Amino acid sequence: MNRSSNLPRIVIIGGGFAGINVAKSLKDAPVEIDLVDKRNYHLFQPLLYQVATGELDPANIAAPIRKILWKQKNVHVALGEVTAIDFDKKLVDFDGGELDYDYLVIASGAQQSYFGHDEFRAHAPGLKSIDDALEIRRRLFLAFEEAEWEADEEARRKKLTFVIVGGGPTGVELAGAVKEVASETLPREFRNIHSGMARVIIVDGGQRLVGPMPEDLGVRAQQVLEKMGVEIHLNVHVTDVTDEGVVIGDEKIPAENVFWAAGVQGQDLAKTLDTEVDRGSRIVVGPDLSIPNHPEVFVVGDAAHATDATTGKPVPGLAQGAIQTGRFVAEIIKAEIAGNAPKERPQFSYYDKGSMAMIGRGNAIAAIGKIHYGGILGWISWNVLHVMFLVGFRNRFKVMLDWLWNYIWKTRRSRLITGDPEVHIKQLYSEHQQPVIKPHRGKRDKTEDE
Amino acid sequence: MNRSSNLPRIVIIGGGFAGINVAKSLKDAPVEIDLVDKRNYHLFQPLLYQVATGELDPANIAAPIRKILWKQKNVHVALGEVTAIDFDKKLVDFDGGELDYDYLVIASGAQQSYFGHDEFRAHAPGLKSIDDALEIRRRLFLAFEEAEWEADEEARRKKLTFVIVGGGPTGVELAGAVKEVASETLPREFRNIHSGMARVIIVDGGQRLVGPMPEDLGVRAQQVLEKMGVEIHLNVHVTDVTDEGVVIGDEKIPAENVFWAAGVQGQDLAKTLDTEVDRGSRIVVGPDLSIPNHPEVFVVGDAAHATDATTGKPVPGLAQGAIQTGRFVAEIIKAEIAGNAPKERPQFSYYDKGSMAMIGRGNAIAAIGKIHYGGILGWISWNVLHVMFLVGFRNRFKVMLDWLWNYIWKTRRSRLITGDPEVHIKQLYSEHQQPVIKPHRGKRDKTEDE
Repeated sequence: MNRSSNLPRIVIIGGGFAGINVAKSLKDAPVEIDLVDKRNYHLFQPLLYQVATGELDPANIAAPIRKILWKQKNVHVALGEVTAIDFDKKLVDFDGGELDYDYLVIASGAQQSYFGHDEFRAHAPGLKSIDDALEIRRRLFLAFEEAEWEADEEARRKKLTFVIVGGGPTGVELAGAVKEVASETLPREFRNIHSGMARVIIVDGGQRLVGPMPEDLGVRAQQVLEKMGVEIHLNVHVTDVTDEGVVIGDEKIPAENVFWAAGVQGQDLAKTLDTEVDRGSRIVVGPDLSIPNHPEVFVVGDAAHATDATTGKPVPGLAQGAIQTGRFVAEIIKAEIAGNAPKERPQFSYYDKGSMAMIGRGNAIAAIGKIHYGGILGWISWNVLHVMFLVGFRNRFKVMLDWLWNYIWKTRRSRLITGDPEVHIKQLYSEHQQPVIKPHRGKRDKTEDE
Repeated sequence: MNRSSNLPRIVIIGGGFAGINVAKSLKDAPVEIDLVDKRNYHLFQPLLYQVATGELDPANIAAPIRKILWKQKNVHVALGEVTAIDFDKKLVDFDGGELDYDYLVIASGAQQSYFGHDEFRAHAPGLKSIDDALEIRRRLFLAFEEAEWEADEEARRKKLTFVIVGGGPTGVELAGAVKEVASETLPREFRNIHSGMARVIIVDGGQRLVGPMPEDLGVRAQQVLEKMGVEIHLNVHVTDVTDEGVVIGDEKIPAENVFWAAGVQGQDLAKTLDTEVDRGSRIVVGPDLSIPNHPEVFVVGDAAHATDATTGKPVPGLAQGAIQTGRFVAEIIKAEIAGNAPKERPQFSYYDKGSMAMIGRGNAIAAIGKIHYGGILGWISWNVLHVMFLVGFRNRFKVMLDWLWNYIWKTRRSRLITGDPEVHIKQLYSEHQQPVIKPHRGKRDKTEDE
């Protein structure tokens, strides 16, 4: 309220890496910014798999958007989901109200893609939000709890089979962490099962793991994971996912736990807009990251189908892509508002700072320029880099503590099974378990002993 | 499996303070213990209100039961809910199997009681589990987010009214923390609303606050809270809770946020057992904490209706009551198994170590024996005591760090609104908001400016 100024109005949709960087880069600009997000927190997505596997708490990797931007007086944060955009009237509708803009920046990110098989979703949660991560965490740790009391060997094996669909960086990190939970964290806590026997399987349609990274690192990741005991199926697609497990090619793998790390697509809203989207619902933008005929509408981060003006390659859907496109767009807006913009807008070029993926305890792969490496050195780089980029010193410090502690003691603190256990346990036991449930050790037969 | 020994079998139902203490006290006893809990974590309940108000992460105050007991080789942990107990056959059915016992210890704790008005539950979540706390946290922080964009003043006021039903220690601690969130944490982050204007109201049917604590401390708590701006209604009962708010006596208080801290009762299972329960579904036990006619069945902690053998007063439903009854029963079992039990069982007497309640920033009340005090000294005692009792050094250290940090910076880290925002936000906006939603600042009217 009381914002009746005539300053140019910027609406930013989304508070991820891209949206936050647009807002922050406009810190000193004479503008009024509205940032709308359907969540109240900014999420450090690269560490989400660690929440899913009990290594970190949600609040370690998520910070309230208001908290991040509270000092920046030209930003107004709104919680809500955008329901419509009118490019001609320059209006954004969200479920908390209506916003008009002079510039619009769409930074709404990506959602999990099931490649047209949305019916897989209920059986195979993805990994895009804190709620997703908590759902995977719940299933992961519940699987061992149930297996502990499952008398039937086949059913037990099914409970202890984890299929990760997708062998990109997220899939590889998730698989490594699940295997670590099974073989390092849990064995000493269970009495009936050998949790280390849990099968962890990666399925990927490509020829090798971590497709976006250099080939030698894909090979390296595979070697490390196989040595850890992770089974890897390449060149094969998942054709069905049910309560019973997954079907890959002609083979059926009985598994109660399927986690989806296979693909992403733009938000559904993108398809409703009066502009071109690609097959993955990403909005197609020009070299200046604006959409055709609307130079005042930019798309950044995972929401955009953008092309690197230098290499002609697509801008990768990584944190760096989001940060760089966000800052690029903010610079254009700043210059135009200040009236010192060049006649032609600049064209976006991606600067590849490298990429990394954690594989397991003390082992990560990294590609920085032409240098590819792995092992303990990769692991150290991975840790340093991820902590450096965590938003807010407080989180950094706590995350470092957690990692150190977990590394030394081979433990994981955040293993709570939450989300109405009364409902879930009952459902799971009744849906998946044998009709007659017997404890593993059976009832002691006193007469026999006497 | 492979547990075919002839050692006496102990089944413990519940992994709270009572159950964990029974198990730990039997550490070196030649027994086989099964501990069944419907949750996989032990919860430090006294700090639950801090999770509900964004001060601590769930994992700070909850530790996996398996983790706590993993070194104790005579314990077998099971996740599941007990569905039936057969005292004659000495069998416990839980949804993961069937367990036979020589001794049974029921330590199943308490659940929220709505005093026969279970229809209040949907409008007024209680505070007994991590999931409860996350639900309160979601409503608390969402209320401010929605109010920020609510144009109608009356509706906005309703969103920013928080009614806490119950003025016992939990109600007082929750109210103080909610008020602190509104006046210390959030003001600088919002632009349209003055979050400090939020109304926080305690309603209690008694004559004063913190009934179980000494009278002068109740008065003190009231003074401090009123100075903080908390409104206190005593001697009055909540007669209705709806979407619109609460009704106390003849007065209607419009409020979108009602939190229930009014009472507890035993688990539903208690009522199905073939033994006496009190009005609050607590199982009535004798002076040795066993049930009539079944000396091998004990009830401890909040599940028990127990009487202090020395004073004749009821054993209070506090952590100390649970810990002491748990240890007492374990000693009886140990002695009887060792064959050196006295002819008559001992009788339980409660040792009152005192009680405390946090009121607000730098202020808590404490009663230790005849010494009653408050203020900053109370606050220091409260912090020291609660950290000392937290399970596991790791948590202690992190909690101290969090408290210190939050105290200095007047912030709260764990303010995530989780639990499927897409569903919740839509519901909330559509249910509670004005039919036509307008942003607070309105749409700028360009023509007027030009």
